[in-house]
Amino acid sequence: MLQKSGVTQRLAHHIVETRWDDIPAAVRHQAKRSWMNFFAVALAGCRSGPVEIALRSLAEFSGGRQATLVGRAERIDALSAAFLNAAGANVHDFCDTHLRTVIHPTAPVAPALLALAELRKVSGPDLLLAFILGNEVQARIGLAISPGHYSKGWHITSTCGVFGAAAGAGKLLGLDERQMAWALGTASTQSSGLCECLGTPAKSVSVGNAARNGLWSALLAEQGFDGPPEPLNGVQGFYNAMGETPDLSLVTDGIGEDWEIMATSYKPYPCGFVIHPVLDCVLDWRGDHPTAEVTRIVVRGHPLLSDRTDRPDISTGRESQVSVQHAVAAALVTGKAGLEQFTDACVRDPKVLALRSRVEVARDTAFSTVAAAVEITTADGAIHRLSQPAARGSDVNPMSDRDLEQKLRTAAGGWDFRHDVTPLIDAIWALDASTDVSRLASLAVPRG
Amino acid sequence: MLQKSGVTQRLAHHIVETRWDDIPAAVRHQAKRSWMNFFAVALAGCRSGPVEIALRSLAEFSGGRQATLVGRAERIDALSAAFLNAAGANVHDFCDTHLRTVIHPTAPVAPALLALAELRKVSGPDLLLAFILGNEVQARIGLAISPGHYSKGWHITSTCGVFGAAAGAGKLLGLDERQMAWALGTASTQSSGLCECLGTPAKSVSVGNAARNGLWSALLAEQGFDGPPEPLNGVQGFYNAMGETPDLSLVTDGIGEDWEIMATSYKPYPCGFVIHPVLDCVLDWRGDHPTAEVTRIVVRGHPLLSDRTDRPDISTGRESQVSVQHAVAAALVTGKAGLEQFTDACVRDPKVLALRSRVEVARDTAFSTVAAAVEITTADGAIHRLSQPAARGSDVNPMSDRDLEQKLRTAAGGWDFRHDVTPLIDAIWALDASTDVSRLASLAVPRG
Repeated sequence: MLQKSGVTQRLAHHIVETRWDDIPAAVRHQAKRSWMNFFAVALAGCRSGPVEIALRSLAEFSGGRQATLVGRAERIDALSAAFLNAAGANVHDFCDTHLRTVIHPTAPVAPALLALAELRKVSGPDLLLAFILGNEVQARIGLAISPGHYSKGWHITSTCGVFGAAAGAGKLLGLDERQMAWALGTASTQSSGLCECLGTPAKSVSVGNAARNGLWSALLAEQGFDGPPEPLNGVQGFYNAMGETPDLSLVTDGIGEDWEIMATSYKPYPCGFVIHPVLDCVLDWRGDHPTAEVTRIVVRGHPLLSDRTDRPDISTGRESQVSVQHAVAAALVTGKAGLEQFTDACVRDPKVLALRSRVEVARDTAFSTVAAAVEITTADGAIHRLSQPAARGSDVNPMSDRDLEQKLRTAAGGWDFRHDVTPLIDAIWALDASTDVSRLASLAVPRG
Repeated sequence: MLQKSGVTQRLAHHIVETRWDDIPAAVRHQAKRSWMNFFAVALAGCRSGPVEIALRSLAEFSGGRQATLVGRAERIDALSAAFLNAAGANVHDFCDTHLRTVIHPTAPVAPALLALAELRKVSGPDLLLAFILGNEVQARIGLAISPGHYSKGWHITSTCGVFGAAAGAGKLLGLDERQMAWALGTASTQSSGLCECLGTPAKSVSVGNAARNGLWSALLAEQGFDGPPEPLNGVQGFYNAMGETPDLSLVTDGIGEDWEIMATSYKPYPCGFVIHPVLDCVLDWRGDHPTAEVTRIVVRGHPLLSDRTDRPDISTGRESQVSVQHAVAAALVTGKAGLEQFTDACVRDPKVLALRSRVEVARDTAFSTVAAAVEITTADGAIHRLSQPAARGSDVNPMSDRDLEQKLRTAAGGWDFRHDVTPLIDAIWALDASTDVSRLASLAVPRG
């Protein structure tokens, strides 16, 4: 029944046939970096409002305590755990990003695999391989319809993430090619998520569903639950309904040779990426001038910086994530740019408020989107000139392994300062030598 | 936060403000007819393959035995019950149909309400009112994008059904207008389902999800889980992503005066509707000539009849639902056109096979899609001429209340011939006098 020439079949073949030995060392390492970032953002989001409400609601319907919730003492069924860990990881928009598609690749995939690893025995290499393949499949499905799909209102992390979760879970389950195509078919008919919901709890539902429904699609396929032979490119399939002039060559060209996970960026700051080079400048300077009184700040950058983030008047933490005035003021006042700096409370802080009005934004087409320059005038009249040609976290200046560890330590500190996160960090770096990852998530759970 | 002029707000207002006293008697009665048809198709599908596999899988994750599965002894959590009862009701394509949108309106809505009625106390009028409103909301949301949405590959029963289930469940929960808009928002970001999956078990997943996720959207909204103010018509909302040149006037014009449920058709036969007038002719004649030997059959109808159903060579029960040759042959051999006549076994029956090759199909633009004429030649050389100007089940010749009762009795007989379905039939007709419908579904459950 499988159309041999179809993209679904070619993806299914790739997922089924690829082995751990086929994965280059750099790709394996990048996968571990993504898991490090995942636990950081999952711990950061594990007590957010949407997670609290969804957990309370799902617990009413859930059976058993099969699976771990990152950062929480409660346990819940595996499908709900996949949902909640994905929703929590993505809630603060602090996730990793595949820039060409703007997919946040790890939030839908990792939670599906983590939950499955508590139902079946899974080794570290199994986990990493499945994760890399899930990542690859969703990125390539998304590349074929970018940027039109996202611009049309589709929340691409959710719409493509369900395929990534299905592919990764299917790999862990050892599905054959026919079953893998079924899993992708059952995923296709659950692909959903609208950008209109960004900024509200409703967003978290589509991200959580991507993980849950992808996992469930693979579990159903294992039981013989079949689907159409070509769900992606059939005449009434995913690309026809949800694609804008898809370029299907991007789904399969170079597959198994180029790895999209290598194009993943990790964010040091939980705010719009165009603000990042500005924060690099401001935080570096603030480190050297902790007590200076600042009277004026002029920020210069790519036109997108002002188009998207020139927002001097804001009232919520959510809005502050896209206000360069707020980010600069909060960084100068507190010396930090973490989750605490983008809360309602920080937005209302009188010191931050006062400084916000002293920030000016200048457009300059000479800058790339990852570059910026900042002029800080202090009370003594001195003008301090700073520049960042490539923001930390950008593709040319990626966060280092130590930066990612520190991101996890900071998130863990905000969650439970008594919790020692070193064993989790060590376990992530040692994943490729682990024979059983069923206890991985428990290293991010409060004690006692 | 609610945009007063938005379609979401107007729908939310309509759902919240409409009272039982506002519902005309004919609309109330039609709602009961839809429930009669629902129990018939849900009993017919309750042991189908997709339901069996999905139940086995969900049971592994489900907690409690909150809710009834139509036709089955097992109980399961309310969300999973909504999923399974919806999937089962739709699995044989024997559902009711809102012809202008081709939405099967009851499959997503009724199961969501039935499950909720086992969690909260719900009266018969509450149930019918919520059902009518859910029906109305999904039909109107779909009308605005018909026929382009379906033609693009969207399984409109699923994509719009999630709104119907959310609206109906939200009404039962007594949500206020703001919460109702949140429920519709969380539904919007879960709207999914592709026609590419029709004819496979994967189809059942999107229909089941429509019920489950609509119900869950309402439960989340009750807990304060908010969403965007205008999920339907926001710039990155449902209509932008999934609509083809939407005509939003169809969402709200005449709302509260015209009731889309009145345009619902119920099918007497589980096959393509264009075959229905042919079956009317053949079954009537067969009733008078139970032992006649037929040598030739010429079927004449609207061009769609031959375009869609001229399929003399088929091999599966699924294909037989769109083969006029098979339908005629099976009806002549067995004297029936029920679920048994559209199975793999009936397709392989030598007598049916032999007769199939004697059926000819003629195109005639003089016929409407609900009309047909049949010429039957018998071994004695006689030619019997029959015609049906308006098929049973069409809008001008709807199934009677007794027909619907008989459809339920037949379905129940195929499911469990010892089960007396009369109390269920009586309970449906008496719904508007019931003070508590929590036991309704249990009347369709095997004893002991």
